[in-house]
Amino acid sequence: MSSYVVALDVGGTAMKGGLVSASGEVLLTDRRPTPRVDGPLRVIAAIRTFIDDLAQAGHGTPSGVGLAVPGLVTEDRAVYSANIGWKDVLATDFTSLSVPVRLGHDVRTGGLAERVLGAGRSEPDFLFLPIGTGIAGAMIIEGRPYGGSSGWGGEIGHISVFPDGERCACGQIGCLETYASAASVGRRYGERLSRAASVQRPDTAYSAPGPSAAAYSNPASAPGAYPAPPSAPAAHSASAPPASAEDVVALAMRGDPDASAVWDEALEALSIALASYTLLLDPSSIVIGGGLAEAGAALFDPLAERLEGRLTFRSAPPLRHAALGMNAGMLGAALLGWQAAGIADAGASWALDVLRSPSVP
Amino acid sequence: MSSYVVALDVGGTAMKGGLVSASGEVLLTDRRPTPRVDGPLRVIAAIRTFIDDLAQAGHGTPSGVGLAVPGLVTEDRAVYSANIGWKDVLATDFTSLSVPVRLGHDVRTGGLAERVLGAGRSEPDFLFLPIGTGIAGAMIIEGRPYGGSSGWGGEIGHISVFPDGERCACGQIGCLETYASAASVGRRYGERLSRAASVQRPDTAYSAPGPSAAAYSNPASAPGAYPAPPSAPAAHSASAPPASAEDVVALAMRGDPDASAVWDEALEALSIALASYTLLLDPSSIVIGGGLAEAGAALFDPLAERLEGRLTFRSAPPLRHAALGMNAGMLGAALLGWQAAGIADAGASWALDVLRSPSVP
Repeated sequence: MSSYVVALDVGGTAMKGGLVSASGEVLLTDRRPTPRVDGPLRVIAAIRTFIDDLAQAGHGTPSGVGLAVPGLVTEDRAVYSANIGWKDVLATDFTSLSVPVRLGHDVRTGGLAERVLGAGRSEPDFLFLPIGTGIAGAMIIEGRPYGGSSGWGGEIGHISVFPDGERCACGQIGCLETYASAASVGRRYGERLSRAASVQRPDTAYSAPGPSAAAYSNPASAPGAYPAPPSAPAAHSASAPPASAEDVVALAMRGDPDASAVWDEALEALSIALASYTLLLDPSSIVIGGGLAEAGAALFDPLAERLEGRLTFRSAPPLRHAALGMNAGMLGAALLGWQAAGIADAGASWALDVLRSPSVP
Repeated sequence: MSSYVVALDVGGTAMKGGLVSASGEVLLTDRRPTPRVDGPLRVIAAIRTFIDDLAQAGHGTPSGVGLAVPGLVTEDRAVYSANIGWKDVLATDFTSLSVPVRLGHDVRTGGLAERVLGAGRSEPDFLFLPIGTGIAGAMIIEGRPYGGSSGWGGEIGHISVFPDGERCACGQIGCLETYASAASVGRRYGERLSRAASVQRPDTAYSAPGPSAAAYSNPASAPGAYPAPPSAPAAHSASAPPASAEDVVALAMRGDPDASAVWDEALEALSIALASYTLLLDPSSIVIGGGLAEAGAALFDPLAERLEGRLTFRSAPPLRHAALGMNAGMLGAALLGWQAAGIADAGASWALDVLRSPSVP
């Protein structure tokens, strides 16, 4: 086996790991739960074990380790994560191996992967926008992810799109995320049905059309700094499962008025936020990933039309589907691992066919 | 006299020129009207003459020429300006001298000057926001002005702060500029009085408290791509001069209810836009310039408070007053001129005391 790095994408729910060769071959992947409820020390211990186990599967010592983690992060320190609960963890504390380690912010590491290996390969200036449980963006500026003056940049999910709108879980008013994340689309549909039920229209009670309540959610792309929005009050039916965004989109496509109203507001909120981003940052494209991107044409077509309609004196950037799916974070972590190993332009020569790479399970 | 560059800040109304030495001494300044109404060829000819005349005042050939111009611009080409009407003008076409020439976008050139010589000297990541006739920003990212993928970035004046609000002159709805530019503050106050007059409350008719209708306007900071907003219908009094933003702020400070309402909406619009900018770009500070910054504490204090109030999970960046005033564009053009002459870090060693430099008349 050729030389390799260990790559780990640490989300609030799951950790996605892999071994990636110097030529970009994904040698293996694995996935484990993040023991977040057991506290930060347990998470760090689980990461160390996961890295050890992955390295065991490789031949010889890895050339480096790369980790994508949530919260505030520098290359050599996980400064803070409200989601996981850690504070000031050195990169080297995440592994027992004596190899170079580099950290990256979860969403920006996914953006790095899309830039080097994915939908942004030929674009130095774009927005990577994974929409899952939460919404955060990776601004790719002059070829590299940009995190702002202190690392807190990219919080497009919390710009106020409706200043007189709903209160977000973060405490602000009218945040994009509270209208348009996958979790919010499901929650808002449930709330709408509950309101309808409370005014005595039992015929509108919801029954979930799809099997998976977790569909379209993407824990890795959540900003992770805030508690999840409260789930919909189940006043109308104690046994109805919460709607997933996938369900809501499917219902909207079939003309369901409640689902259509919720989806319409999500699209409107997204178009306002993306118009603001476009006017400020002038991206050459907007690369949408995360669970909600799986809605496909039901998302991309009306959103592109609304974005174009909002802009009068400039054109709208094209919306593209992210290329790397749920592997973006792990592949970005692999790039960080190779950068740690001294390969500054890691990935530049990789002829990665992501469809042929083993996916993270 | 030491070696020098010719610097020119070309606005829609006036051109501000200067000679600046290699050590940052402003040797002289001058100002001429921009013959915009006579068409782009006349403007180009006027620029050439202005540069010739400035160079005549120096000893020997200048080391370079720097120009700040509106619209879409690269270092060596004025690609397009709706305001002035030119298209694809080479940098070298702006002068008859055989010296290196470099162009810059007007607002970003002002931002460059604030970064190198002014309020952002120690800050690599901040927003320079001149508020005048229009509103456009210069995003300083990792030490340099950033214009986006195609040069159209920074249009913070046209992000929609009230999606159900007023139509902007640009055609979009609820733009920051249509509520908070100096021109809009004056216009909206006049419109408010007109509406009051039309419902038969003649006691609210406006009489201008200040002498200058042009106060607080700053043509150089206008994006320049759109027509000026229509002036207030003068239904209530054909002879009343339009209110200036300075007038409106003064009236608001004295408790005038109409002026207070207009100023309140301007502050609210600014706080929404700056909260969005902060959440996205995470600047270490926001440097406000242009005519409206002359409102001082009446602008800065309530705006800082509102911005802080809008952000729940992060702190607000401090608001700073721009240091270079109306000279920012000319001083930035001087930096461009020295860059053209081969001094990549022009300005780094200048011990510029802008208060002792001759101001552009």
